[in-house]
Amino acid sequence: MTLTTIQLEAPYLLYIGDVPDDEHAKTAFGIRDWRPEKCAGQMRLPDCPVDLDLPDMTAEAARTAGVKTAIVGVAPTGGAIPEHWMPDLISIAKAGIDIAAGMHTKLADMPELVAAANEGGSRLVDVRVPPPGIPVGDASKRSGKRVLMVGTDCAIGKKYTALSLHRELTTRGIKTRFRATGQTGIMIAGEGMPMDSVVADFISGAAEVLTPNNDDDHWDVIEGQGSLAHPGYAAVTYGLVIGSQPDAMILCHDVERTQIIDPRKYIPIPDFDELMAEYLVAAHKTNEDSRFVGISVNTKRMSAEDRKAYLADLEQKHGLPAVDPVAGSIGPIADRLLETT
Amino acid sequence: MTLTTIQLEAPYLLYIGDVPDDEHAKTAFGIRDWRPEKCAGQMRLPDCPVDLDLPDMTAEAARTAGVKTAIVGVAPTGGAIPEHWMPDLISIAKAGIDIAAGMHTKLADMPELVAAANEGGSRLVDVRVPPPGIPVGDASKRSGKRVLMVGTDCAIGKKYTALSLHRELTTRGIKTRFRATGQTGIMIAGEGMPMDSVVADFISGAAEVLTPNNDDDHWDVIEGQGSLAHPGYAAVTYGLVIGSQPDAMILCHDVERTQIIDPRKYIPIPDFDELMAEYLVAAHKTNEDSRFVGISVNTKRMSAEDRKAYLADLEQKHGLPAVDPVAGSIGPIADRLLETT
Repeated sequence: MTLTTIQLEAPYLLYIGDVPDDEHAKTAFGIRDWRPEKCAGQMRLPDCPVDLDLPDMTAEAARTAGVKTAIVGVAPTGGAIPEHWMPDLISIAKAGIDIAAGMHTKLADMPELVAAANEGGSRLVDVRVPPPGIPVGDASKRSGKRVLMVGTDCAIGKKYTALSLHRELTTRGIKTRFRATGQTGIMIAGEGMPMDSVVADFISGAAEVLTPNNDDDHWDVIEGQGSLAHPGYAAVTYGLVIGSQPDAMILCHDVERTQIIDPRKYIPIPDFDELMAEYLVAAHKTNEDSRFVGISVNTKRMSAEDRKAYLADLEQKHGLPAVDPVAGSIGPIADRLLETT
Repeated sequence: MTLTTIQLEAPYLLYIGDVPDDEHAKTAFGIRDWRPEKCAGQMRLPDCPVDLDLPDMTAEAARTAGVKTAIVGVAPTGGAIPEHWMPDLISIAKAGIDIAAGMHTKLADMPELVAAANEGGSRLVDVRVPPPGIPVGDASKRSGKRVLMVGTDCAIGKKYTALSLHRELTTRGIKTRFRATGQTGIMIAGEGMPMDSVVADFISGAAEVLTPNNDDDHWDVIEGQGSLAHPGYAAVTYGLVIGSQPDAMILCHDVERTQIIDPRKYIPIPDFDELMAEYLVAAHKTNEDSRFVGISVNTKRMSAEDRKAYLADLEQKHGLPAVDPVAGSIGPIADRLLETT
């Protein structure tokens, strides 16, 4: 059983069209932040309010600069590419630059784009395609250790936390692997399992495939998907928790998030203790020793002083190390992880 | 937004190949029991141990008897049709009889069968195909009432309980609709949502589509899928509970089932109270008034005396009406449903 594996040739051009805000461009930001050495530029529509702080390029300029792959770095609601982005994408494909995207709508299903790619001799790479032959999950115990990111909501820092922890464990000389569960993670890692695109019957089986048997002292650091608190995506999260049989979990949050991100209905962010209890009920079904080892919070707009007080308060309240892995260090959570499991 | 809708022309021939036991032929039994007036015969391989108590027919005999549709009445593990059943299915298609099936593997993807259907002028109907355009669930409150079957395991009587309750409510003159969530239910009802075949991101959205706004005094009786206790299918169940925002739930069980049906690993049937508490935590996310209104148990091999004692004990222990809807009557659960919601 294999994972979804992709080979993207660097350098990259990050395409973001005219996304309304940073959250809708999270794929682009993720690749810029975690694979900066591969990013040559960005391409945007004239009125795009988002800026990746990379040189702006046309398709022609990108080709001249040696760009090999353009990554559609967006997560549009509904998963489709807006019609008015097509001229840009067609110009990229005609310039002989590969295009990679991870939406529910496939590049390969857009006839105009396929024609342009044929003309330019470029590849269209659809990242969010599960591998064939995923089995129904059976919860058999696997060797090795697993730590899973879970969230108070979607798009709340699970991937950044997982990548930070993976880097920290690597630095400490511990055997570890980042296990990508979504489009951005797969683009960063080159492989993974697009959990949200798997057919319902096979969700936990897909998580089992993603985190196979390994050495007893090896840590799979699993990206996470969705949230048990999100009314649309909770089923994906539930199957991922059960299938990954995590030895440890890290609760991820964004201090500015007060309600679930879906704008159609007001749902408050749940109480942390209640939510962690729910995650544990699910995790204990396949790993009775599963426990939380930390809380990871995005506090980027807080002052250093406020951040310190806020995280200290969380630690006190929940008895867990609480960190901002970007503004601070994930070290204390890594310590707790390695002490207690 | 529409449901998966199928039109099957009666009379039916139920095809079961050489399935090893009754549980693997649950689609055939379901159609025989709930649409008996439409079933003309069965077709089996010579060494098939399962018997539907219908006249055995060849394809030729079925055509002579006026059969219009053959239903592949099985639920094979893995979802594929065994190679040695193909000659039978080809003979049916060549005889001009439509074939309907609800496996993950599609009839339309079997070139030999497609050729035979073209030759015979028959239709191939794949039931387990979700409708296009399912949205991400958003938990918006819908009008009307919903009662959802949930189970201690898969294949444990949820569909029979739902159909019994639907018939009981209809008899009492209450506005109601059976909402099918799986292949057999869809074949019985002619429409529904194949929940286990929906792409992961859209599971709860699919449940929302299945049970739309309705009259305030209308009851959707929802079939249910899988079980929170099943390590492979729990994610489907979780999304269905959240998306259907049930006013009421009925716990379904089979008294002979002591472990989860997947044979690869021993997992005991969980404690009823713990399991019901889990279902309520999920249900309360989208309907804070959700409650259990009964326990429905398959006790078919028990003596009348043992059944009575067993159900009385369940009632006592859990404070809920406990019935066998096939050996007895679902009436007491219908009473509780209508009293308390």
